[in-house]
Amino acid sequence: MTDTNALRTRIQTNFDRSGLMLHLGARLGEVSRGRVHIHLPFSPSLTQHLGLFHAGATTTIADAAGGFAALTLAPADHTVLTVEFKINFLAPARGESLEAVGHVIRAGHTLTISQVDIFALQAGQKTAVALMQQTTINQLERQA
Amino acid sequence: MTDTNALRTRIQTNFDRSGLMLHLGARLGEVSRGRVHIHLPFSPSLTQHLGLFHAGATTTIADAAGGFAALTLAPADHTVLTVEFKINFLAPARGESLEAVGHVIRAGHTLTISQVDIFALQAGQKTAVALMQQTTINQLERQA
Amino acid sequence: MTDTNALRTRIQTNFDRSGLMLHLGARLGEVSRGRVHIHLPFSPSLTQHLGLFHAGATTTIADAAGGFAALTLAPADHTVLTVEFKINFLAPARGESLEAVGHVIRAGHTLTISQVDIFALQAGQKTAVALMQQTTINQLERQA
Amino acid sequence: MTDTNALRTRIQTNFDRSGLMLHLGARLGEVSRGRVHIHLPFSPSLTQHLGLFHAGATTTIADAAGGFAALTLAPADHTVLTVEFKINFLAPARGESLEAVGHVIRAGHTLTISQVDIFALQAGQKTAVALMQQTTINQLERQA
Repeated sequence: MTDTNALRTRIQTNFDRSGLMLHLGARLGEVSRGRVHIHLPFSPSLTQHLGLFHAGATTTIADAAGGFAALTLAPADHTVLTVEFKINFLAPARGESLEAVGHVIRAGHTLTISQVDIFALQAGQKTAVALMQQTTINQLERQA
Repeated sequence: MTDTNALRTRIQTNFDRSGLMLHLGARLGEVSRGRVHIHLPFSPSLTQHLGLFHAGATTTIADAAGGFAALTLAPADHTVLTVEFKINFLAPARGESLEAVGHVIRAGHTLTISQVDIFALQAGQKTAVALMQQTTINQLERQA
Repeated sequence: MTDTNALRTRIQTNFDRSGLMLHLGARLGEVSRGRVHIHLPFSPSLTQHLGLFHAGATTTIADAAGGFAALTLAPADHTVLTVEFKINFLAPARGESLEAVGHVIRAGHTLTISQVDIFALQAGQKTAVALMQQTTINQLERQA
Repeated sequence: MTDTNALRTRIQTNFDRSGLMLHLGARLGEVSRGRVHIHLPFSPSLTQHLGLFHAGATTTIADAAGGFAALTLAPADHTVLTVEFKINFLAPARGESLEAVGHVIRAGHTLTISQVDIFALQAGQKTAVALMQQTTINQLERQA
């Protein structure tokens, strides 16, 4: 198995363990060192009171994309937990799907800082709808 | 109808229009001027890779509690949209349910700043698991 | 020396080492476990383009108040560094002085989360002008 | 006068009115539509307790760079005020000087979102030391 495949397997395994990702209908996209894409097709189950994607849906895939990007660089026996993040909403989140692209800005021994760009795809147009700055922490995976 | 009932009706109506609130199983709790509670019972559909509440689930009800708290103070013909927020995760979010309590710090003509405390309830214990600081904007409701 | 005096000495010593605190004319106020006050008298050297306190001045004493609040709870051989913070500006910062009150929300082994309230004092009135949420990290003090 | 000169004059004029910029010894660098650089030479007056640039100094020029970047795109009779920002510190801020580069991510009618990269320059090396995400608001300039 190539390194790229090992990386994807690591992220896909963790993605598939996330009940919320499956419940929302999110799908893992491209995975490379320090960068992860997540896609979220529109559904009426993901909306706020005006029928747009709910900020919580946008944020959920953004947090996951940033966290998984950090996980691609974490030691093999470590997992990643979100310490905090901040997100700005740039435009109404409407369209056929959202895409969150998380990439690591700085991977430290303990803390990792990532940035996540979130886009809406509508009728072939890609529009930036949100921007996240996130801090995660590496932790030894627990034997559950 | 009392003012309190009118306030609750306004928030409940908007809550019920939010597909994501229903899809996650969230319930509207207490509503008063400048303050809104939202409850989220645990479900395996709300978890991250370790089986805890996903940061995205915690964040979604926090964003909604803060936004609805702002809506209790917004002019009758206005709705509220999230401009941005920041959230810190204080402790692992595990237990029977989460509760988000949003309260307005400052309601301006255009922008409102709210703070949201998020608690986990487990075996009769209430633990603070996250803290959000949020900016929302009042907008004339669109005739859709 | 009482514990309270020891605590104050620890914070005052670090405060006096901060060239920027002195350059801005900031003064250390009350110090107790998990809580620190910092005062900043107005000066034309602290203004933005409209003559109000510059957001950078407000932020500087807020960051220091939160960091020193965290330091009151840190192990004796550790210092505290800012990981990140977020600040909302609630009202124009005008008056005779600013006061930043930092208090620890959660002190962990590695990371501490603090909140800082910043007030302007003008003609006997105290107005909340900013609100900060901050993450700091405990680090072994270096032998320099 | 060319447009570029007019733009620089607008920003330089506002920069020179900021008492804090001068007090810290900051200098305005390159100015173009939606992008502003600010430089801050090291001084013992800018340090925290370990002798590095204080987070408050880093943040002050970052806030100014983002705000002035927003101002380059604001209507002629408007000024710009900071609504809020979030900053992550990526590495110790040491060296001969800091440079903050603010660029606008989205300029709306009312709100502008900017991102600011802050670098330290030491012995010919340029290191990213902080990253800011900022929201500003356009306001009609007051007749003072």
